[in-house]
Amino acid sequence: MLSDTAPQPQPEVLLLGLGGVGVLYAYLLQKGGANVTCVCRSNYEVVRERGIDFHSDRYGTHLGWRPDRVVRSPEELAPCLPDVHPNDEVVRPYLERNRALQPAHLPTLVFIQNGIDVEEASHQRLVVSDEPLARGILSGLTWVAVTMSSNGHTVEHSDMEALRTGTYPSPKEGDVPAGLAEANAAFIALARRGGSDAHVSDDITPDRWSKLLWNASWGAVSLLARRPVFELLQAEALASTIGAVRGFLLELLDVARTSGLNEDRFPASHIDQVLQATLVCSPAKLCVLRDPKTFLEAPTFARFRPDFKPSILIDMERERPMEIEPLFAHVVRRARRTGVATPRLDLVLATLRPSQLAFARQQRKENADAFLQANEECYIGPHDALVGDVPILWTM
Amino acid sequence: MLSDTAPQPQPEVLLLGLGGVGVLYAYLLQKGGANVTCVCRSNYEVVRERGIDFHSDRYGTHLGWRPDRVVRSPEELAPCLPDVHPNDEVVRPYLERNRALQPAHLPTLVFIQNGIDVEEASHQRLVVSDEPLARGILSGLTWVAVTMSSNGHTVEHSDMEALRTGTYPSPKEGDVPAGLAEANAAFIALARRGGSDAHVSDDITPDRWSKLLWNASWGAVSLLARRPVFELLQAEALASTIGAVRGFLLELLDVARTSGLNEDRFPASHIDQVLQATLVCSPAKLCVLRDPKTFLEAPTFARFRPDFKPSILIDMERERPMEIEPLFAHVVRRARRTGVATPRLDLVLATLRPSQLAFARQQRKENADAFLQANEECYIGPHDALVGDVPILWTM
Repeated sequence: MLSDTAPQPQPEVLLLGLGGVGVLYAYLLQKGGANVTCVCRSNYEVVRERGIDFHSDRYGTHLGWRPDRVVRSPEELAPCLPDVHPNDEVVRPYLERNRALQPAHLPTLVFIQNGIDVEEASHQRLVVSDEPLARGILSGLTWVAVTMSSNGHTVEHSDMEALRTGTYPSPKEGDVPAGLAEANAAFIALARRGGSDAHVSDDITPDRWSKLLWNASWGAVSLLARRPVFELLQAEALASTIGAVRGFLLELLDVARTSGLNEDRFPASHIDQVLQATLVCSPAKLCVLRDPKTFLEAPTFARFRPDFKPSILIDMERERPMEIEPLFAHVVRRARRTGVATPRLDLVLATLRPSQLAFARQQRKENADAFLQANEECYIGPHDALVGDVPILWTM
Repeated sequence: MLSDTAPQPQPEVLLLGLGGVGVLYAYLLQKGGANVTCVCRSNYEVVRERGIDFHSDRYGTHLGWRPDRVVRSPEELAPCLPDVHPNDEVVRPYLERNRALQPAHLPTLVFIQNGIDVEEASHQRLVVSDEPLARGILSGLTWVAVTMSSNGHTVEHSDMEALRTGTYPSPKEGDVPAGLAEANAAFIALARRGGSDAHVSDDITPDRWSKLLWNASWGAVSLLARRPVFELLQAEALASTIGAVRGFLLELLDVARTSGLNEDRFPASHIDQVLQATLVCSPAKLCVLRDPKTFLEAPTFARFRPDFKPSILIDMERERPMEIEPLFAHVVRRARRTGVATPRLDLVLATLRPSQLAFARQQRKENADAFLQANEECYIGPHDALVGDVPILWTM
């Protein structure tokens, strides 16, 4: 949350979730001139007592780094994962406290997270409600490789960093709340002063979809395979890998199109770019069929380390709740609304669901067999419950 | 392999692969009057020195059971898994030795295994070749729950056992080799004398497909989820589980139809039966929408134990090569030939492939990073290699 912009000499930033990405941006915003308060749950003691060793190829080494202030949440907040707690529930207590202290001064929310449709619920409940708690939402994406050690002492960051934020809604999709575009410009300026390669997005929705393309295709295949991305790229696996990845990409393009993203805002060539940018990281040499003497060349990012896994797969392996909602469930919900078939994305959701339920129960310290116990819940699945000619619903 | 039938007082059986199912049928065929020789690889010493403790709810307890003879393979045979060694390669050395010893006497092969299209290669190479090595192939299926302990000492068998064999080809699909139907009847009679609930199938192909339906739908979802089947059936997962399972079933039905299995031989109602027979094992109460006071009722088999996993998932967890070819790859090959889209089955193949390659390398004791090393192999994927408008092939 960024509280106010130009007039004050020192902007106030309240940052929720001090993991790897959180440390990076807390550091950059602090360096850019903001007074940064971080809400820490699991690593409150660590941050307070010894600080965090922040090693960045781009921003240097900072041993024992601390934000300006560290606070514990007013209540025991769960990790800020939209699958467990929606964004608006996570920030609401802070916004209510802010309104009690300074009713005339509504802060701006900045969501830096993957996936789509992460803003609407918060926009409805916190911005356009009868008693607004925030001025508006900036919808953001970051391209970084950061890892926090499991004890929370150290954050490693590579050379790559890029940040992009836009207003919610995008000006192409609705009325932008008064002052929000200016708040966005001020936020980007602050991040740039801190050293971030930050840019304003004039239309964040297609940017969100572009970033989703990789996570919900290459990332999805790696996740279902439970293997590093690099193993998908070995010669003996490529034939089936390409078919699977392309299948996901075409489903995503189809949903994007029926959601109103036309070729102008979201060119179909993104699909080929996402496919090829990772394909050229294969240890095999790829020849273009139409001219077999030519090797496939495509713009790419840094080569994958052989053990690189998408973060959602690492969550899976550590038995932590996964970021399924913004990456997969929101896409499938849009597909159902617009009548698009997404068999592969559906299958990701179906086959992650039992693990997600198990991890959430572990986190709530519930009995592992809780699902065996009957309750009176009744559930109707209008799309999925048709079994041959026998529609069913179920109660448990 | 069953060597001759009616005239001899004691049929000779050579059994390849003494795992849980092998022990069960070696026991039953021996009891039925056959002289049973078993080829053992990993458990040769165990079988020879202490025998196997065979506990069956149906056939009683037999401590230290041994077949009539135990032989080591003429060479170090790998496990009889079609993904690693095709059936015809596994049996060929025995058939050649048999022909050298008694050229006029060709044995009958009995394949008891899951999946489809497991017979054709052996039929071409061993039965209808210029120098036939076998009289013909009996294509068999078994419905059993057996587990062998990891040390190979013990086999546990429940009360369930059913066996069905038919000629290959089925009389509805081609000319049955002379004498094969009689050999089939004799084999079934032998198994029944031993106590098996064995039946002749007049048309084994639809039986193979019917059994495949469960393995490649409920089994596939459990495999991709890496969770017991029972967890797919919890109320909070059912909506997505049903959609996924039904999706697999409809793909399978589509491939079966375009492969020539019409409604007479393979009724579409099998789909609903397979879906519902497992669905009613849910801990949730399922209500039929058209009459919400009625709970879903369907014929079913024994309830699932909460930890029951398909055997292919157990292979996956133990990092052993999986039975992918007959269960999935053959179906997808038929789908490509007949132009049927099978996005879900394709995704199973694509996401199992890196693990299968890794397990096969482990078994060959190759370097885990072997796939990183370049070789001059060149590969064209006509179906999968089309990337947008850039067809590619690759060399490694």
